Amino acid sequence: MPAPRQFLNYVDANANNFIKRLADAVAIPSVSGDASYRPDVFRMAEFLEKQLKSVGCEVRPVPLGKQVLDGQEIDLPPALLASIGNDPSKKTILCYGHFDVQPALKSDGWDTEPFTLLVDEKTGRLIGRGSTDDKGPVLGWVNVLQAHKELGIPLPVNLKFCFEGMEENGSEGLDGLIEKEAQKGGFFEGVDAVCISDNYWLNTRTPCLTYGLRGICYYKVTISGPARDLHSGAYGGTVYEPMTDLIQLFSKLVTPTGKILIPGVNELVAPLTDEERERYEKIDYGVEDIEESVGAQIAISEDKAEVLMARMRYPSLSLHGIEGAFSAPGAKTVIPAKVSGKFSIRVVPNQTPEQLDPLVSRYLEFEFAKLLSKNKLSVESLHGGKPWVADPNHWNYVAASRATQAIYNLEPDLTREGGSIPVTLTFAEQLGVNVLLLPMGRGDDGAHSTNEKLDRSNYIEGTKLLGTYLYEVGAIQKD
Amino acid sequence: MPAPRQFLNYVDANANNFIKRLADAVAIPSVSGDASYRPDVFRMAEFLEKQLKSVGCEVRPVPLGKQVLDGQEIDLPPALLASIGNDPSKKTILCYGHFDVQPALKSDGWDTEPFTLLVDEKTGRLIGRGSTDDKGPVLGWVNVLQAHKELGIPLPVNLKFCFEGMEENGSEGLDGLIEKEAQKGGFFEGVDAVCISDNYWLNTRTPCLTYGLRGICYYKVTISGPARDLHSGAYGGTVYEPMTDLIQLFSKLVTPTGKILIPGVNELVAPLTDEERERYEKIDYGVEDIEESVGAQIAISEDKAEVLMARMRYPSLSLHGIEGAFSAPGAKTVIPAKVSGKFSIRVVPNQTPEQLDPLVSRYLEFEFAKLLSKNKLSVESLHGGKPWVADPNHWNYVAASRATQAIYNLEPDLTREGGSIPVTLTFAEQLGVNVLLLPMGRGDDGAHSTNEKLDRSNYIEGTKLLGTYLYEVGAIQKD
Repeated sequence: MPAPRQFLNYVDANANNFIKRLADAVAIPSVSGDASYRPDVFRMAEFLEKQLKSVGCEVRPVPLGKQVLDGQEIDLPPALLASIGNDPSKKTILCYGHFDVQPALKSDGWDTEPFTLLVDEKTGRLIGRGSTDDKGPVLGWVNVLQAHKELGIPLPVNLKFCFEGMEENGSEGLDGLIEKEAQKGGFFEGVDAVCISDNYWLNTRTPCLTYGLRGICYYKVTISGPARDLHSGAYGGTVYEPMTDLIQLFSKLVTPTGKILIPGVNELVAPLTDEERERYEKIDYGVEDIEESVGAQIAISEDKAEVLMARMRYPSLSLHGIEGAFSAPGAKTVIPAKVSGKFSIRVVPNQTPEQLDPLVSRYLEFEFAKLLSKNKLSVESLHGGKPWVADPNHWNYVAASRATQAIYNLEPDLTREGGSIPVTLTFAEQLGVNVLLLPMGRGDDGAHSTNEKLDRSNYIEGTKLLGTYLYEVGAIQKD
Repeated sequence: MPAPRQFLNYVDANANNFIKRLADAVAIPSVSGDASYRPDVFRMAEFLEKQLKSVGCEVRPVPLGKQVLDGQEIDLPPALLASIGNDPSKKTILCYGHFDVQPALKSDGWDTEPFTLLVDEKTGRLIGRGSTDDKGPVLGWVNVLQAHKELGIPLPVNLKFCFEGMEENGSEGLDGLIEKEAQKGGFFEGVDAVCISDNYWLNTRTPCLTYGLRGICYYKVTISGPARDLHSGAYGGTVYEPMTDLIQLFSKLVTPTGKILIPGVNELVAPLTDEERERYEKIDYGVEDIEESVGAQIAISEDKAEVLMARMRYPSLSLHGIEGAFSAPGAKTVIPAKVSGKFSIRVVPNQTPEQLDPLVSRYLEFEFAKLLSKNKLSVESLHGGKPWVADPNHWNYVAASRATQAIYNLEPDLTREGGSIPVTLTFAEQLGVNVLLLPMGRGDDGAHSTNEKLDRSNYIEGTKLLGTYLYEVGAIQKD
């Protein structure tokens, strides 16, 4: 069931008001990672609360306690739990978003003031920090509700919202809230599915629905030898050097073509089905797109599906760096006493941190023993997060796919992402319902970069998409 | 010919005056590596000039031009060229030393004020910055001259001095001066041998003479891939990662037991003679000493001579670190776009940077090609310095050995050092004469560390040693 014509017309007619709303939101520098901006994050929560109330929501700001940031103990910004509609004959959709942003200073290299939304009429871009991540999508929901309130038409579903102000800083406090409210009698009771709009199309052309995320296992491998750093002139050759050992171990983790060498790790990967392989073949994103986005012709394969699967459905191992070694410019003749190599594995079903951690430790210990070094090895897991994958044939995805075709006249790409959005897994596990990632912005929006933007068309058509998605959800028989 | 008894007695009788002289010198914080201390370096040059004149030297301060330090253009401290005696029937010895020091702040961890010489009566230590490196040895020469002046006895040799104020900061300007003054009619004309007192005994018990230094070849290996750092979630698995390539290359340079894997490098090492091997067997410095000084039981061998040779007469390769990778504490999920690994090879006769550079480049290029990576490699030599070795059977060493036995009643260890003292090679090459490294201090003096000290006995007996060395030189038939 498509959205009513009058809704779509209303969005077009009110586009400039919606852009004004986004400009008001961008003007509040709600940077969650810097204590000095914390009052602005609170101000942003109040702004959003007011907006939600003005379009008919009941809103409850939930205090999340305190945190220590930049050496001071400060209040966490509240989460906003909002709802509208309570009709037992309708489905209930929970929408998640966040109203905090990454830091931004003009001196970082922005062409314009980051906290003043610039509407570039020539390119159609709305440029400003938070435009696409995640104020645009959050206000998209407000726009949808405003249209229905003003037009006096009922919503096709019951809606609940969970908006947080700490996403860019580890979502501190949110997991506990979700766990609590997912219990019987909690705010999330009765939710049929979740919709998160906090990611991006793969490219600049084709909308997508995202049904999977990789997890991560992050490791720190420390080799320690002498009691203090040594001069390579006086000691080079006379002692076992920790860097030499670490480099040997690191060279045994992954090949230049990306093959993980830790026994047992690849064996845990869920087998590829023909249907799935086909899904990657169909995605409108190729080797050239990857190479354009990284700025070099360094793709791991000429085969598009192979490259996409390497990002979306296979694990990868990246060597990030070494703590304790000489890392400055210039030439220092040091033998570092203690070096900690950092690497992480992006994990996919059916890998879990619980399974990987012992495989990694045992392998490193085994390989270290072979070096016959007199130095000491220790292996630490710095953090672990499970992968997430949803059923893309679920009605939640069917509805989103139909809505995308209605608005963009294109079948959306079905994608998985290589990174993590930890709240996704929390919702999936705690609520036990299907979770959909329904992006509004494009792949070149530059979410955490300078000159972050959201295309005007993505904001306006995206608002229509969110509304239409609700109608498509409403049209599907509740199971 | 031993030194006259009256000279030795004079030194004992005036020990406290000599310590006062050292205290006056330590009180001038002549830190050459910090522009704000530059006036103190000049003040130290004036102090030393005055001291040298007061004991009978002619002194010529030589301006060395300007340098840029800490962003400002400032004058280099002068070198002092001094001389005493011009008897063609006597040998002429050139003594080198430096009057600048390493930085020191009490807050670095000093137990006492670094620029106030503390005479610790209990331990017999003279504690203060520059006490052993190199103000003690420099003033040792002044003490010798004072004794001869006061006693009215002639010096057994002609003496020239070259004292500089930039040794701790790369000896800027000195090479040009040496080259100039080494020419016909220059200040260094007629020098028969050089004596440098700017190093240390291996241990705390046994004096040594040092006849060799390793050189160094320092390399920077850069692998560049994407145009900017990438997020390992979005891109891990899809592209060739520079860190993976660099780690593979670094793993092919040296084994954990220190064997250099670059073909051709070990083949250039001068063969070991039986006489030389015996020299290492005799040195009063063992595996326990090495392990005590590094604070861990990580010596590369249980065989003392093997360990000493690894430091003194064989090359070594140390991996110093990586520029451009993640080096901070914590867990960052970055794929670094461009990483530069730094390593150096300590080189020994008959290796030269000219020979090693192409061997290293070619090997790295060859190994990189085998990786079949799409990233780019570049190899740079950051600096190169030749090794130096003198003939320890030369009369200059024979004299120093006799003097050591006269003062300490011990045969000195004949050692080579693992590091570089570049001025040594400059004197050897420019003057074409034998150079002797005749240390005053002990292996635990902590030259560049907190609580730098010179033992009172090393300062006083060391002054006797320097004087006695001159008599032994004078007693040997001039060739």
